[in-house]
Amino acid sequence: MRIAISQLNLHIGNFEGNLAKMLAAVESAKNQQADLICFPEQSVCGYPARDFFEFDDFINRCMHSIEELCKASYGIGIIVGSPTKNPIALGKNLHNSAFVLYNGKVLGVQHKALLPTYDIFDEYRYFEPATEFKTIEFKGKRIALVICEDIWNLGNENPLYTICPLDEMMPEKPDFIVNISASPFDYVQAETRIGIVRTNVLQYKIPMFYVNMVGGQTDVIFDGGSLVVSPDGSVFDEMPYFVECLKVYDLEEVMSPLSTGKGNEQQKDKIKLIHDALVLGIRDYFQKLGFKKAILGLSGGIDSAVTAVLATEALGAENVRVLLMPSQFSSGHSVDDARQLAENLGIQYDIVAIKPMYDAFETALAQQFAGQPFNVTEENIQARVRGTLLMAMSNKFGNILLNTTNKSEMSVGYGTLYGDMCGGLAVLGDVYKTEIYELVKYINTLPLGKNGAPAVIPQNSIIKPPSAELRPGQKDTDSLPPYEELDPLLFHYIECRKGPNELIAMGFDEALVKRVLRMVNINEFKREQAAPVIRISTKAFGMGRRMPIVGKYLS
Amino acid sequence: MRIAISQLNLHIGNFEGNLAKMLAAVESAKNQQADLICFPEQSVCGYPARDFFEFDDFINRCMHSIEELCKASYGIGIIVGSPTKNPIALGKNLHNSAFVLYNGKVLGVQHKALLPTYDIFDEYRYFEPATEFKTIEFKGKRIALVICEDIWNLGNENPLYTICPLDEMMPEKPDFIVNISASPFDYVQAETRIGIVRTNVLQYKIPMFYVNMVGGQTDVIFDGGSLVVSPDGSVFDEMPYFVECLKVYDLEEVMSPLSTGKGNEQQKDKIKLIHDALVLGIRDYFQKLGFKKAILGLSGGIDSAVTAVLATEALGAENVRVLLMPSQFSSGHSVDDARQLAENLGIQYDIVAIKPMYDAFETALAQQFAGQPFNVTEENIQARVRGTLLMAMSNKFGNILLNTTNKSEMSVGYGTLYGDMCGGLAVLGDVYKTEIYELVKYINTLPLGKNGAPAVIPQNSIIKPPSAELRPGQKDTDSLPPYEELDPLLFHYIECRKGPNELIAMGFDEALVKRVLRMVNINEFKREQAAPVIRISTKAFGMGRRMPIVGKYLS
Repeated sequence: MRIAISQLNLHIGNFEGNLAKMLAAVESAKNQQADLICFPEQSVCGYPARDFFEFDDFINRCMHSIEELCKASYGIGIIVGSPTKNPIALGKNLHNSAFVLYNGKVLGVQHKALLPTYDIFDEYRYFEPATEFKTIEFKGKRIALVICEDIWNLGNENPLYTICPLDEMMPEKPDFIVNISASPFDYVQAETRIGIVRTNVLQYKIPMFYVNMVGGQTDVIFDGGSLVVSPDGSVFDEMPYFVECLKVYDLEEVMSPLSTGKGNEQQKDKIKLIHDALVLGIRDYFQKLGFKKAILGLSGGIDSAVTAVLATEALGAENVRVLLMPSQFSSGHSVDDARQLAENLGIQYDIVAIKPMYDAFETALAQQFAGQPFNVTEENIQARVRGTLLMAMSNKFGNILLNTTNKSEMSVGYGTLYGDMCGGLAVLGDVYKTEIYELVKYINTLPLGKNGAPAVIPQNSIIKPPSAELRPGQKDTDSLPPYEELDPLLFHYIECRKGPNELIAMGFDEALVKRVLRMVNINEFKREQAAPVIRISTKAFGMGRRMPIVGKYLS
Repeated sequence: MRIAISQLNLHIGNFEGNLAKMLAAVESAKNQQADLICFPEQSVCGYPARDFFEFDDFINRCMHSIEELCKASYGIGIIVGSPTKNPIALGKNLHNSAFVLYNGKVLGVQHKALLPTYDIFDEYRYFEPATEFKTIEFKGKRIALVICEDIWNLGNENPLYTICPLDEMMPEKPDFIVNISASPFDYVQAETRIGIVRTNVLQYKIPMFYVNMVGGQTDVIFDGGSLVVSPDGSVFDEMPYFVECLKVYDLEEVMSPLSTGKGNEQQKDKIKLIHDALVLGIRDYFQKLGFKKAILGLSGGIDSAVTAVLATEALGAENVRVLLMPSQFSSGHSVDDARQLAENLGIQYDIVAIKPMYDAFETALAQQFAGQPFNVTEENIQARVRGTLLMAMSNKFGNILLNTTNKSEMSVGYGTLYGDMCGGLAVLGDVYKTEIYELVKYINTLPLGKNGAPAVIPQNSIIKPPSAELRPGQKDTDSLPPYEELDPLLFHYIECRKGPNELIAMGFDEALVKRVLRMVNINEFKREQAAPVIRISTKAFGMGRRMPIVGKYLS
């Protein structure tokens, strides 16, 4: 039996586009003599479709795509994911389902039982879990068909669920497992995912065909890396990350012990993965919203430099435009460094000094502000003048503003709401400052300059101390701990959810712990209005981290 | 047996404050010879605590409060809600629990079984549902103890769950039901809630003591309205809305058929309820964040007028400051109307013309904008200059900016991101424009002016056609359908989740449906960065409505 895996980049709610991609893949698989083709979870509608699920019309359109695929299933089995209506009055209205289509008929439907409801996931909001588990016969073989999380209750120290769908199916002696997934990227996920798939295969001693989605959906990035794992737990094949892919596998070959060691596992370099995820995240955000051109502010620092590079990789130099907006407090070399980067990348830049607007605000408010000292207010006015200039360019020319805030700043609220926090997408909002330095090193090895030159980011941007340059001689360390101290503490608080006592027990300074946790917690109101953040870690700001704004805890 | 209901305004994560309130209520109930006092769901930590639940330390602090209440339970039973750790490895780590404490001991613990996971609710994200149901004996009576949603699977056309906790408890022949709730306000909820409580009481023929929380938690408002319902389904008492309350009831009196008709049901006038909810929402947002003073922009239109009135009611005239920021396109009477309102309310106002800043931006971008016509860019610059002025005042003087956007505008994206969408709290973001007119009528009956004069909102603000005044002679109807047509369509799309075909079948014009649904859907990116909205309807923007940004559906 020849089994095709089709790792596709799907688009939420784009029924025509998703169907066209799947029909093309079916044709291609047929041409390669495949018996069966497997598409990702909820491939008809894209993932996560969120509250679109509350519209009957949306579910009906999913069903229409299933019907069309059914018509295309003559001579080839199709496994495809879709929401379906729950026929029973009790419980949630929908199931998260996998169809097996063949010769114009529905051979079987299996619903998902383990519904992830944590971090970015909200599946219990919409779906009733499966209570029946049956294998599906196809061309003389029995398929154990499961959906994404259904296999994640095995090999887990702290299982989130009380049942294990494959355990329920095993009495029917299936020949192989098909798992259709929408498993999002973070920089450790590919490793974890292989571990879970292998644990399942070793438990049941039959091969698994695991198909994952690829592509960016605003904040959430799907990385692909679909897997074929032989009964002995060896990786027969791992598909590439971040690109679409169609391959056909011979079941007998996958079953054969000779296959051991043939594995085609991808390299898992954290910084390269983050880089590739961010480029895809930007590209898909623009492509799926129907935009081409980006704009951003270039300060001469590394955050905006990295954002400009990633945007250029994603959209092409001709589609990226930058503004250099020096203030009276900007150092002379800031403009030079920014200009150098723009020239290295070959992107259009304009220099617009912010002093005239800043002065106009100070004059307009002179009466109200009489006798008040210069403080964060004036710093924020400068940041908001920049935000307004960038948004004006965005509005006039249709360039979407990219936000350049990093995760360290976003955590402690070191940024101006409606100022440097403006933008449609926060490219680096899940990347700590110390990780951005690593990203810079990696980027500077890439041939991204004119004529393929490396080192596009000027050395001076890298070595100078980080500064917002909003008052004379300002440095980030005036109001924040050094990033080498701050970032590990933030990581353990945000990603690992360690409380204050645990952090102090780990050796973090008590005063620092209290100060930093307070900064994180009292700035929830800012993050509430932040641009969506491309998620690259196990805990990004946004839908995956839901904190009360008026919460008094640790504040 | 004498049973006290303590309807409290609790604060998320404010363990000391919440405990102090409960201990004071216990003292007061003891003084009134109560045998038992009932507090709302999750009263130790406030509701909804969201991802604070992921911190062990947070749960430990909840347990500490339970211990302190236990110590206070000598001579009085205490029913109180708290998250608890799930001792079983499988499943979620926590339960949502109700404790019965008495004489320093835990008499019983009942976990919640029906975990709301829809709209603003995320309970399945944290909690494992109860599978055991036992009544709890207290002073010779059997209590059927349930938590909020546990009674919502009865009398529901489309039940979300597959079990019914009270059904499981009835074989033990309980004497009465206690339901501890955190049931949030919307303008139909009080009616619905009474219906559900009555349906349960009539089903089981024993009385119910239903205690609800009160208070604002940023977006979500709890309205109180705690209930005592006699076995014949009659309302023995309904506590007031939006205020704390402690009352002691005699069980025998509640049981007696003579009680029929003694009901003390509150009036349920939609516009008054909305008004009261918004005032409480503002007051609690400030109080719980530790702020006193508000600022907002007053345009002369009704949205900012209503916001100013509500803020004045919530915070006092001495704590509300407004800016009048005329543009070159503002009509003369706009400033007059705004000034009149400020004078009627006795709040401080300043007039700051925006032309100098606007001109500075136009000059700074003259080279880039050369040859480009005046368009939405210039309108947005004006709105952003206003936002920057308001935020500068906010930063300098510590006045929190209130946002004045209404739900109609927010739906169709008729507002400037980082401009008139600025603010810490969107007071009217869940109130349609047509409802704001009703609110104005109601407000103008209230004695809110100097010396208790009514009609604080000037007639001229009410009768003039709505306009953003961002270009000469502009009216909202230049780019939007009239609000009388727009709002019902939005209501059926947003609140009732009717799809395009259903809306057309209802009689809405097909072209209008397509145009409006597209406007709603393509503006998700703006709402993603909007201020939190005080929720007054069954479907508000924010956590209760989760839509993909790159979703192509109906866009």
